[in-house]
Amino acid sequence: MNPKQKTIDTLLQGRSTTIQNTSGRVYAPANIALCKYWGKRDADLNLPLTPSLSVSLGPKGSYFGFQMIEDKEHQINVNGIQIEKTSAFYQRLVSFLNLFPNAEQACLQIDIESTIPIAAGLASSASGFASVVKALNELYGWQLSLQELSILARLGSGSACRSLWPGFVEWQMGERADGLDSHGVSLPETWPEFRLGLHLISTQEKSISSREAMEITRKTARFFKLWPEQVEQDFKAIQNALSEKDFKALGQTAESNALALHAMMLNAVPAISYTQPHTLMAMQKIWALRAQGLALYFTQDAGPNLKLLFLEPDRETVLAHFPELDVVAPFAE
Amino acid sequence: MNPKQKTIDTLLQGRSTTIQNTSGRVYAPANIALCKYWGKRDADLNLPLTPSLSVSLGPKGSYFGFQMIEDKEHQINVNGIQIEKTSAFYQRLVSFLNLFPNAEQACLQIDIESTIPIAAGLASSASGFASVVKALNELYGWQLSLQELSILARLGSGSACRSLWPGFVEWQMGERADGLDSHGVSLPETWPEFRLGLHLISTQEKSISSREAMEITRKTARFFKLWPEQVEQDFKAIQNALSEKDFKALGQTAESNALALHAMMLNAVPAISYTQPHTLMAMQKIWALRAQGLALYFTQDAGPNLKLLFLEPDRETVLAHFPELDVVAPFAE
Repeated sequence: MNPKQKTIDTLLQGRSTTIQNTSGRVYAPANIALCKYWGKRDADLNLPLTPSLSVSLGPKGSYFGFQMIEDKEHQINVNGIQIEKTSAFYQRLVSFLNLFPNAEQACLQIDIESTIPIAAGLASSASGFASVVKALNELYGWQLSLQELSILARLGSGSACRSLWPGFVEWQMGERADGLDSHGVSLPETWPEFRLGLHLISTQEKSISSREAMEITRKTARFFKLWPEQVEQDFKAIQNALSEKDFKALGQTAESNALALHAMMLNAVPAISYTQPHTLMAMQKIWALRAQGLALYFTQDAGPNLKLLFLEPDRETVLAHFPELDVVAPFAE
Repeated sequence: MNPKQKTIDTLLQGRSTTIQNTSGRVYAPANIALCKYWGKRDADLNLPLTPSLSVSLGPKGSYFGFQMIEDKEHQINVNGIQIEKTSAFYQRLVSFLNLFPNAEQACLQIDIESTIPIAAGLASSASGFASVVKALNELYGWQLSLQELSILARLGSGSACRSLWPGFVEWQMGERADGLDSHGVSLPETWPEFRLGLHLISTQEKSISSREAMEITRKTARFFKLWPEQVEQDFKAIQNALSEKDFKALGQTAESNALALHAMMLNAVPAISYTQPHTLMAMQKIWALRAQGLALYFTQDAGPNLKLLFLEPDRETVLAHFPELDVVAPFAE
């Protein structure tokens, strides 16, 4: 049996197996890790080698609308455009839907609206899969807990397990082989002044998926051996920074953690570099501004874009230097 | 006693202590490491933590002309321009000269001609200090062996110990606390078709010296722990590639080794990045050309410039893509 299906069967034991709501619309935010997830201990179940810690992006994420239709296949639109059934996107989503019991009883018209560019290292698959499991929960009326939905979302895309909650979220790596203890946990800290600015360098699809990059890194990068140790230290430092509201420590650690990730990828064979010349220019600008005293930091995922970290009082200064920045206030009402 | 002086006294035991030649002119080539030197086990004596392996740059290097003068201080010209006595360059060179016995008996007019830009990560200090010890050997008529001169050059700048020979040179790290077994050794392999192209991004002085960067990396970069292991593997791979004339293996290993070095620096706190946007553009171009089948590789030192590695039959193709490239033929007559 597919190990994903085993997890699904366990979680859905005793839950409804018939359609309860023929239509609905749910939302899940994207999330950006401040301490990154990189490397799996189980590639089938997306079980991580380390914990990770993210902040959800409030209004940046994925809406997932569904409606039962009389048809033989699902219809999927993304941002109003119909997706080819032969595309990788369609295949990946439908394969995931087909893991669930009685999947054949409902063909759906699916309307995904992403308020964040897709497959550009902007966590679109995280919000995407989190929204899928929320939608299935509605469709079947399972009434699963967010923690249970987090486990299901993880099966679609590891980091999706952090997109079930707003604010800061920890992905507890867990120890069990079946992964039932590997899921997101909402952290109590809020930080109303915390800002994350999306600095888009390119929204083209990345040349190598994070899934592949993770595997190449794990197999070929010598420095990957020390990644768990790096995460352990950074994770603690970020937890402390959150509880003490020490923004400088938070920013510095998140930036170091991201740079360590990209350093490991440079150490892979062949080297993987998501950094583009304009990414580096932006980093150099941030370093120069910081040398002048501005509390501005960045993080970078499996793509060329940067996510700038700063506090509301510095917003105008930051925007003066990065006028195109798309500023997210994760804790705004 | 200054540990450098102890080494000097040991090597010069029984040698002439008086001026034998009042003028002379010597030359030492710059050298580019294919397996890098990074990190010291003894910072006073520039004793390395690992061996390293370089190729000397033939006509790219330093001429060191000297002439005794009636004066109280040395006069130093670099490429025809008189150097301020308060400058770091003057101080570093004169401090080195003053380590030698009876240094006060001769004031010199020194004329350095560098055929490679200075302090831009182009190994100018390597050829510089190698030429200094060759000049002192002439001045005093010591008749030291190249191996002994290599040890003396190392005291000025670690990588200078590889600049006493043309071609491929290994820096044997040695084991002794006094460093008398830590010096260059000329390798027997020649490779007439081997080409190294200097791709200059910037010849401005670097913002952080390799000496400082090495120390920050050693103290703060977690990944530095694995550097000796990385070097051990790369060193063997390069030795094999040289003996088998396997250019692809040589280029791939030299490139990986350089990227591992820069990855470690990204992992330092604060991160050290010598890479400029134009450096990255050139790397991307090299990767794209390689994907099309061209056997073109690069290495990068503590600066933004790249050194391209290729073979003579690909020279025209490489120059078509990098028309400004300054091509060196290390084994040309």
